[in-house]
Amino acid sequence: MTIADPRGLLEAMFRAAIGAASPALCVPAHLPAAPKGRTIVIGAGKASAAMAAAFEAQWPGPLEGLVVTRYGHGAPTRRIEIVEAAHPVPDAAGRDAAARILAMVGGLTEDDLVVALMSGGGSALLAAPAPGLTLEDKQTVARALLKSGADIAEMNSVRKHLSAIKGGRLAAAATPARLHALMISDVPGDDPSVIASGPTVPDATTRADAASALAKYGIVPPPTVAARLADPASETPKPGDPAFARVANVIIATPQRSLEAAAEIARVAGVTPILLGDALEGEARDVARVMAGIARSCRRHGQPAAAPCVLLSGGETTVTVRGQGRGGRNAEFLLALAVALEGAAGVHALAGDTDGIDGSEDNAGAIIGPDTLERARAAGVEAKARLADNDAYSVFSALGDLVTTGPTLTNVNDFRAVLVL
Amino acid sequence: MTIADPRGLLEAMFRAAIGAASPALCVPAHLPAAPKGRTIVIGAGKASAAMAAAFEAQWPGPLEGLVVTRYGHGAPTRRIEIVEAAHPVPDAAGRDAAARILAMVGGLTEDDLVVALMSGGGSALLAAPAPGLTLEDKQTVARALLKSGADIAEMNSVRKHLSAIKGGRLAAAATPARLHALMISDVPGDDPSVIASGPTVPDATTRADAASALAKYGIVPPPTVAARLADPASETPKPGDPAFARVANVIIATPQRSLEAAAEIARVAGVTPILLGDALEGEARDVARVMAGIARSCRRHGQPAAAPCVLLSGGETTVTVRGQGRGGRNAEFLLALAVALEGAAGVHALAGDTDGIDGSEDNAGAIIGPDTLERARAAGVEAKARLADNDAYSVFSALGDLVTTGPTLTNVNDFRAVLVL
Repeated sequence: MTIADPRGLLEAMFRAAIGAASPALCVPAHLPAAPKGRTIVIGAGKASAAMAAAFEAQWPGPLEGLVVTRYGHGAPTRRIEIVEAAHPVPDAAGRDAAARILAMVGGLTEDDLVVALMSGGGSALLAAPAPGLTLEDKQTVARALLKSGADIAEMNSVRKHLSAIKGGRLAAAATPARLHALMISDVPGDDPSVIASGPTVPDATTRADAASALAKYGIVPPPTVAARLADPASETPKPGDPAFARVANVIIATPQRSLEAAAEIARVAGVTPILLGDALEGEARDVARVMAGIARSCRRHGQPAAAPCVLLSGGETTVTVRGQGRGGRNAEFLLALAVALEGAAGVHALAGDTDGIDGSEDNAGAIIGPDTLERARAAGVEAKARLADNDAYSVFSALGDLVTTGPTLTNVNDFRAVLVL
Repeated sequence: MTIADPRGLLEAMFRAAIGAASPALCVPAHLPAAPKGRTIVIGAGKASAAMAAAFEAQWPGPLEGLVVTRYGHGAPTRRIEIVEAAHPVPDAAGRDAAARILAMVGGLTEDDLVVALMSGGGSALLAAPAPGLTLEDKQTVARALLKSGADIAEMNSVRKHLSAIKGGRLAAAATPARLHALMISDVPGDDPSVIASGPTVPDATTRADAASALAKYGIVPPPTVAARLADPASETPKPGDPAFARVANVIIATPQRSLEAAAEIARVAGVTPILLGDALEGEARDVARVMAGIARSCRRHGQPAAAPCVLLSGGETTVTVRGQGRGGRNAEFLLALAVALEGAAGVHALAGDTDGIDGSEDNAGAIIGPDTLERARAAGVEAKARLADNDAYSVFSALGDLVTTGPTLTNVNDFRAVLVL
């Protein structure tokens, strides 16, 4: 790939980013030592079926197991059972799978090994209400927290104290077996306790924190939830707890490593990669305006780097929906970027979700170039009006500029590349 | 200044940025050759009185002149008259000054020299309605365009064709005298035809463009305006017009040069400067979230540079006012940055308007550090709630963290520095 083919180069970078996070590549490099006893493979997340397939293909000994993944994210396995369930709102399939997983890791011995295959989405897929609670109780509280403006740390503290599996409880259930967790990170900071709400990771927060978070936002929980938080048994296992004495949590893929893989493709093509961050956030259209400004600076001033260069970033933007149109956050980012660049020469860009699904559409992302606005105009599409209607998918669909991968069976969040020639 | 005193270092960078654009520094370096005949100094903009003071202090020969600046932006001069007028909405003082300036440059000879001292704000300050139009006619159209969503190029085309002084008409009026314009840029791309609407610069747009822009947005102009655009006399002088044969337009200060001056202060302190662009745009709170993400990447991954480093940027963010509070866009940017950083260790930032006035308050900007949120909490100030109310000024005022310079008598737009230690 060379800069003579900007679209091909951008697509190669996106493929490299996805490839660096693919279970087939990164699971085999992190296999645990084989146990004397049984090997039980469990897991949850959008990548977990593919992780299971990669694991069983490499594992030399006997094994049995069950992982839960999102509908449509299954992968062919021979020995590990795959259950598909709902995301982001949990359903009965996920709840039943979580109960079965907890049962499978119970009653093991010191000679046994539990392999946990965790990835983004695992929190919703592994819904196991704590004793005395229903899925509905948890959902009532989760919805109230979402509306309240509580931050992610506060929400996670509540979630973990209402769960029978999150916040280290899976590790506690698996004691005294050895536990080896392989994780694909889709969260800012790659904190293992946040990935899938950390079923195998100590929880530094307390049930008092959870109760304070509810009080802080004036949330009156259902009586069952209040009773749960009043019960010392709701306390999650803390750092230093013996439950973690034989636990290894290994992160095998991250947004940053995927950006670095794309950067390597750029370098080979003679393009300077500028890694701006693996966890950028903000309203998609405003993140786009900032990227447009940085791209212009590269061309005009050679800062932060001279062209040819590529601005790489990961992390999840947000879209405040005000219109009636179609499109995920990556398409919206790109349409806003095209509008902000006003056809600036030499600037091409690709943005996509590494899981292969931008929002709820069938595309992973899209691609723009200096001629995007002009081609849209020629096709009778008014880019600014479409942007105002949150209708970026329709624009790129009309232009034939969608990037489609299908579910990639991994997830290291969004990928954005702005190529400045 | 060293990284042991982050606040002092940030303030030194801000001072360097303002200093690099100060008329006292950059006017003397760009004096034209003295003429055989008269020297007439005219000008308009927030920096123009200070430019006039710097010019007359250095000029070896006789001179006379008149410049118009914003109320409160005067400077002591001995020979050049200073008129103060309204900005951003023109008033009679600006209109009368523009008429006097046009009269002063009329009737000159080839031996005479006109020195034009132009800076940001000059467009509103130099209000000279074309023959047959009133200031009200122009304002009616300007307001309609602002509401319509027309872009800056469309607005400028209309403005220039309704003016007796903009879009190169001042240069035409000064013919056959030699004209030497010194400009301080506050516009993206540093295009001389955009600074103060380019009174001394050829206009590549036509009255047909102006008429189409009005038609495109369904604006029905007052009959006087329609008549003006139908009159071939409304055509502005174009590139190649003999009116520009003896015109030099010299940009003496830009946002980029100010960022580079700040970068030099950083380098001396052992801090790697990362120049992200001199014209970044976007909603202030979202630009802040992007900057927070880049700062975190510097600390976690050493990308785009390892700490200690400083992210420098210029250009104007926007604030969509939804609350009732006080504060300009730089204070809002900083409060949003503090919220996004959640007290992240080692990150300090300063943002300010280089003209010394952030929005309509008495501060140029403000400053944050890792302890900003904690100190706010201790003072009973809820940062997130204040941000939701667009009340950043009140927060920084309560904390004693406003940065106050008074009017700096120059303007190269906003300055933002995020220091990562």
